[in-house]
Amino acid sequence: MSARTGAGGPPTGPVPLGAGAPLHGTSASPAVVALGGGHGLSASLSALRHLTDRLTAVVTVADDGGSSGRLRRELGVLPPGDLRMALSALCDDSEWGRTWRDVLQHRFTSEGGLHQHATGNLLIATLWDLLDDPVAGLDWVGRLLGARGRVLPMAAVPLDIEADVLGLVAGDDDAPTPVRGQVAVASTTGRVTAVRLVPADPPVRPEVLDAIADADWVVLGPGSWFTSVLPHLLVPALADALTSTRARLCVTLNLAVETGETDGFSAEAHLEVLAAHAPTLRVDAVVADPVAVGDPHALSEAAADLGARVLLRQVSLGDGTPRHDALRLAAAYRDVFAGSYGDLDPRGAARGS
Amino acid sequence: MSARTGAGGPPTGPVPLGAGAPLHGTSASPAVVALGGGHGLSASLSALRHLTDRLTAVVTVADDGGSSGRLRRELGVLPPGDLRMALSALCDDSEWGRTWRDVLQHRFTSEGGLHQHATGNLLIATLWDLLDDPVAGLDWVGRLLGARGRVLPMAAVPLDIEADVLGLVAGDDDAPTPVRGQVAVASTTGRVTAVRLVPADPPVRPEVLDAIADADWVVLGPGSWFTSVLPHLLVPALADALTSTRARLCVTLNLAVETGETDGFSAEAHLEVLAAHAPTLRVDAVVADPVAVGDPHALSEAAADLGARVLLRQVSLGDGTPRHDALRLAAAYRDVFAGSYGDLDPRGAARGS
Repeated sequence: MSARTGAGGPPTGPVPLGAGAPLHGTSASPAVVALGGGHGLSASLSALRHLTDRLTAVVTVADDGGSSGRLRRELGVLPPGDLRMALSALCDDSEWGRTWRDVLQHRFTSEGGLHQHATGNLLIATLWDLLDDPVAGLDWVGRLLGARGRVLPMAAVPLDIEADVLGLVAGDDDAPTPVRGQVAVASTTGRVTAVRLVPADPPVRPEVLDAIADADWVVLGPGSWFTSVLPHLLVPALADALTSTRARLCVTLNLAVETGETDGFSAEAHLEVLAAHAPTLRVDAVVADPVAVGDPHALSEAAADLGARVLLRQVSLGDGTPRHDALRLAAAYRDVFAGSYGDLDPRGAARGS
Repeated sequence: MSARTGAGGPPTGPVPLGAGAPLHGTSASPAVVALGGGHGLSASLSALRHLTDRLTAVVTVADDGGSSGRLRRELGVLPPGDLRMALSALCDDSEWGRTWRDVLQHRFTSEGGLHQHATGNLLIATLWDLLDDPVAGLDWVGRLLGARGRVLPMAAVPLDIEADVLGLVAGDDDAPTPVRGQVAVASTTGRVTAVRLVPADPPVRPEVLDAIADADWVVLGPGSWFTSVLPHLLVPALADALTSTRARLCVTLNLAVETGETDGFSAEAHLEVLAAHAPTLRVDAVVADPVAVGDPHALSEAAADLGARVLLRQVSLGDGTPRHDALRLAAAYRDVFAGSYGDLDPRGAARGS
């Protein structure tokens, strides 16, 4: 067999233009940082990879369930699952990239100890152990996938999420119950009113702070609001970086009310709870799909309170599932980044509707 | 991050000449098939990679211990460990190749279910599950490593080794006890007299038969004699291929008497037990280190009975450990392949000694 990864490994250098090249061309592409976790972050990255190769994902490290939770407990590492998903979303669109993405995303099925472990989680944990550096390990997986961007952990240590939840104590709707752990918070039957991180002031890698400082745009969401989106704003070093950066901030709302943590939350309630957790945050744009917006006027008002205009656009697949269409979402981000939007007046009635 | 594996994955094509290029140059390099398993096969491959890029390893799939044994039982796959070691021995000598080799060879250390699993075993098992083809899966790992050659399983199904062992029943030295399993056979305190395979006539992949048919040289050993070297000769399809090929056969003897299965075996006894298990096999050359040869004349006679001449040469590291020196072993193979050897006359006294 003579197939190889080139003479001495993959070449380093700019991403060549090809099938998946940025729509804008490399030279004009904006530097974008996407904050989030899980499937929501995969959706924003799958869209943003069409617009730029200067893309950095900053990913939640609070998962305590499934393969990630087991690895976190067994090996003492950052939970790798959300990082793996983000890397997979950025894989090169070639047989090589897609094959290694499929390897990363593969889960074992057995009666034994490997059951439901994701191979990519084990690969990431191995690189962390070998290189003793979470960022270097993720960069190597990125090189394996030919990833169109970089994936970084939001904190350098594993985090726990703790929430105040109402409605768990029968007969006492006003007494919040503290609920600990991402899985427990994301699946609570009560109403989440606030989240905190443990530890409250975790260390953040300089690569993360540099990426935010140097970004043109920061994209927050979509994703599980209390467990994948808001946590970034609760890390003091990240909140400071988001306040001091020259980058503009785009919030992407979810397509459906989620069961559990945001059961019954309106679109504007998502913005209000965001503002409550990050009082000094200034937002420039909010991307929402009409299907998930019951009251466009109320959303526009809530956005304006944050300093933002709303781009109301179909960004869903439109098949009834709450999944984003990568190209429609890419088109929405393109318009946001170009400033050519404002479907709704920030302080008034909807335009042209 | 813009480092990539090239535009759309690794290029296919001939292995470029470089730091680790064959000593003979690509055009003159012989087609070589190396048969074996474990550390012994790693030794022959580490030598042969200096001589040729037309190299195929055909690897035992009878391991039932450690990480491989657990995967075999839990996932129903071929035991991947010896295949992983062979691939690692062929990795490209670049930062890329060495890093992914280190990832493959990494073993987890924990209090949990991952303890002592080799990451490469999990990666190979994943590719087998994804691609549903053991050979295609191994080829993908070979591409990841930029491997200088191809690694194939000796059979398409997992094998068990069963041995007749003397000396296990106190007071009855003539009654052989059947011992089943590679680990049990390799570590027995008795004396192994014969080995069998279960199943006795396993399917063999056509890629293996083609490689043997097209080879210039087949190299057998070094390695655990009864559990990594002889098993190849017991597979009927492999034995037929070795008999009908135009390739010449070189047997490489071990550097030390092993504990367990060949405890106290002389160099010539290794050849005699080989002949007993493969009566029709013709051997052309035997490579041995003087340190492991007590009676050069007896070895020469035993070799001659198989049709072979002996190359008696230091191929060990010489540090007291029973480990081969890759470059010394490469030099020995080069001389064997060129026919410029024959330190001992096949039917008589030692020359020049």
